[in-house]
Amino acid sequence: MLSIVLIGTGNVARHLFDAFSDCDSVQIRQVIGRNKKALEYFHKTTEITSDYNLLVDADIYIIALSDDAINTVSELLKLSNKLVVHTSGSVTMQRLVNNRTGVFYPLQTFSKNRRINFKQVPICIEAENEADLAILHKLASTLSREVHEISAEQRNALHLSAVFVNNFTNHMFTIANEICGEHQLSFSILKPLILETTNKIADMPPFEAQTGPARRNDTGTMDKHLQLLNSKNQKDIYSLLSESILKTYEKKL
Amino acid sequence: MLSIVLIGTGNVARHLFDAFSDCDSVQIRQVIGRNKKALEYFHKTTEITSDYNLLVDADIYIIALSDDAINTVSELLKLSNKLVVHTSGSVTMQRLVNNRTGVFYPLQTFSKNRRINFKQVPICIEAENEADLAILHKLASTLSREVHEISAEQRNALHLSAVFVNNFTNHMFTIANEICGEHQLSFSILKPLILETTNKIADMPPFEAQTGPARRNDTGTMDKHLQLLNSKNQKDIYSLLSESILKTYEKKL
Repeated sequence: MLSIVLIGTGNVARHLFDAFSDCDSVQIRQVIGRNKKALEYFHKTTEITSDYNLLVDADIYIIALSDDAINTVSELLKLSNKLVVHTSGSVTMQRLVNNRTGVFYPLQTFSKNRRINFKQVPICIEAENEADLAILHKLASTLSREVHEISAEQRNALHLSAVFVNNFTNHMFTIANEICGEHQLSFSILKPLILETTNKIADMPPFEAQTGPARRNDTGTMDKHLQLLNSKNQKDIYSLLSESILKTYEKKL
Repeated sequence: MLSIVLIGTGNVARHLFDAFSDCDSVQIRQVIGRNKKALEYFHKTTEITSDYNLLVDADIYIIALSDDAINTVSELLKLSNKLVVHTSGSVTMQRLVNNRTGVFYPLQTFSKNRRINFKQVPICIEAENEADLAILHKLASTLSREVHEISAEQRNALHLSAVFVNNFTNHMFTIANEICGEHQLSFSILKPLILETTNKIADMPPFEAQTGPARRNDTGTMDKHLQLLNSKNQKDIYSLLSESILKTYEKKL
């Protein structure tokens, strides 16, 4: 049995809490957070507090907070010889000032009201020593089939890749939604295409899955599309991404 | 019973052929194409030819060819009082020189070896007169539950939106794949995140689903990411899309 204390009350903390609550081999001893209203969510099944002086004993302390808060909160944890980890994709382990430190980074986008199947969420772990890495491996394996030991540099690269595949992709959807709105079209008409776009890369490398006017160097269609776009921002994005697709295939073919 | 002749042997023609082959109420009388090898695919169950003088009689002639070829092939069809349609998202109906014309645009990305469930593919139809629109409605309804009568202007806007949600999104995946490769990471580690990114917008408008450093205006992380990127092209894309996300939320909130 591994015991944990969760620090934070945001989306990541909630999702970890829900996932660990389903694991017989993990006991959540306490949830700590400043936001008393948000803490209520955890109150039914575990101890809650806003006072770092009331920290209980556990094997692992998980700081699931925004990047900026990690260092400060790490300093508030008066622990000796306890494993302290954070859940961030882009903060180094060294920002934790405690004497045993690590990283427990679940690579997923978490929203408040969406349940996630943690079995398929890659959990990227890192620790300063082998014994702690083994503990984190055990903890991560209770949640997921996808546990990866990766370096800080790789974690940064993954976080950056996640910005492209999640944040920027979602922004493409937002722009398409705007274009649909301007032409009295429902965005939902695009949903089957969106689902197929991502289903496709389950079987096919994205380099091979690429289609469209830029891929074919169909300048006529691209010119028509640029004329259709109303905002300079959207025109700039259309041009830069089309140019980038053109260059990608010139370079490699 | 509606009878059709399919003109073309590419991905769209193949997918339409497979889908119509499953419909009892549609008879495919002939497939015409220049590429004799590609024509073999259709030979088992229907007549094939490369000679436009051997065109057989049918209710509807579907030109499933690249945008550039539509006008030329339309001129080759010596038909009187027959409905001729094309399948393009960005070509006007007026490029068809025949006396009864229309559009039959399936809004989906078609790849050679991927089977598509046509029931969920939006089919966008347009015709010069009401009677032909009714025929196209009947034909489209044999394949799909999602038949939409839309104007040429709306079809252009949809095609443009499709470039954003499919072509540009896939390019984001290609860039992430490159970043992973540079850091000895398998692209497959990102797949659960990619699937969740698109599953999320089934329930949530993309504007609300947006997360990430640009959404939070987290300049520290964005600066780190820019330093991590190796190519000027990737840096330009990261900057422009982050800037666009920032502006989107400044504007609306």
